[in-house]
Amino acid sequence: MTESLTIDMTGGAAKPIEFAILVAPGYNPVDIIGPHTLLGVMPGVNLHLVWKNTDEVMGTPTFPTRPTTTFDECPADLDILYVGAPGHAQFTDTETLEFLADRGSRARWIAGSCLGSLLLGAAGLLQGYRATTNFGAVHFLPYVGATYAPGNVVEDRNRITAGPATGGFEIGFRLLQDLYGDEAAKEAILQCEYAPEPLFPVGSPELAGPELTAIAKAHLEPSLAPLTEIFEKVGARLGVAG
Amino acid sequence: MTESLTIDMTGGAAKPIEFAILVAPGYNPVDIIGPHTLLGVMPGVNLHLVWKNTDEVMGTPTFPTRPTTTFDECPADLDILYVGAPGHAQFTDTETLEFLADRGSRARWIAGSCLGSLLLGAAGLLQGYRATTNFGAVHFLPYVGATYAPGNVVEDRNRITAGPATGGFEIGFRLLQDLYGDEAAKEAILQCEYAPEPLFPVGSPELAGPELTAIAKAHLEPSLAPLTEIFEKVGARLGVAG
Repeated sequence: MTESLTIDMTGGAAKPIEFAILVAPGYNPVDIIGPHTLLGVMPGVNLHLVWKNTDEVMGTPTFPTRPTTTFDECPADLDILYVGAPGHAQFTDTETLEFLADRGSRARWIAGSCLGSLLLGAAGLLQGYRATTNFGAVHFLPYVGATYAPGNVVEDRNRITAGPATGGFEIGFRLLQDLYGDEAAKEAILQCEYAPEPLFPVGSPELAGPELTAIAKAHLEPSLAPLTEIFEKVGARLGVAG
Repeated sequence: MTESLTIDMTGGAAKPIEFAILVAPGYNPVDIIGPHTLLGVMPGVNLHLVWKNTDEVMGTPTFPTRPTTTFDECPADLDILYVGAPGHAQFTDTETLEFLADRGSRARWIAGSCLGSLLLGAAGLLQGYRATTNFGAVHFLPYVGATYAPGNVVEDRNRITAGPATGGFEIGFRLLQDLYGDEAAKEAILQCEYAPEPLFPVGSPELAGPELTAIAKAHLEPSLAPLTEIFEKVGARLGVAG
């Protein structure tokens, strides 16, 4: 992308697009930066990096970031509510969950990538929906009343979820398509030069095979293991069997 | 990615990997976040978000970011010097160019995506090298003494360059492969679930065709046009015919 990229487009944006991205302590910038940039460069988009306050938060890995908008200041009616992988503390943080539940109750699109899907779920926003998340965490989806569905991007009514990293870009292209039309989505794909060529074709458990997948899951285990207890509580609170 | 992802790996990292990413005012976070996260989660990596000082800088689009390391504090000997698209001011900013030229003179790898390639070039680091950049800006490469080469990732000795956005991820996978080995690169590709499926297959000028490419170039023109004058001066300073 370039310093002042703007894309003219017709239709669909008569009033501002209100776009809120959660940036909580421990958040993973890699999950949010695709949609952040794809939509943030569009004319008529009001971009909000939201958190409880505008004190600097630390990303994972190290990425000191200052939110632009507090929960209180965030527009009540959002066009897009977006969440990437958060810090674990947010899965049980009442203020965060209430904010997401409130804005999600009215948002045009509710989007989450990687463990961000599960945070939306913990806020009660995925009950009865098909969804996806990080491949190592799909077993947590039932705890929030969601049903796992395969695919890079899973769309069920106005919920749209994806895996980590480039999952966010692919959600972004789909949201551009919905909000600005096919031509805008196509142009964004070209402007991003989104024609990826993985160095090795192992970007999913199916492609990677059981051996590499087992290694990857074992390496994820220390960070995901604490989520079992957390999601049992989340499931109980939501009244979901899990 | 997850909150505390760590990847065990063998070999190649007996001493810390010093990894510096330029975060200048106007920088594009989408270009740096792939390598930032891919390498930043690895054990033994010292991640530096470098700028003249540690005052907050504003990304493009809006992304308030605080550098972690000043030019003065940045290790003299870097394993990776990485630059994404900067603000235009950096192309002629003596302090920035001198910092890049100095660290680049000793760095193990010198990497740039999108217009970051051209900033490396403006610092004199691409003279006599094959390189790439944003498709709309490849005509500036001769001004810095570089020769355009096709490909998602272009590697010439220890210079590695790519287009925008996911170009950075692909540089990151290659650097992981070099510094940590094939297995670490494969695992990172799986942990990222990097098996992209573009919504439309138009992610390069060749794929997009002449009509969409012309539209995209026309939209880039306002932001790229000022670079012509800038790079004529850069070429004159470097003594490059252009």
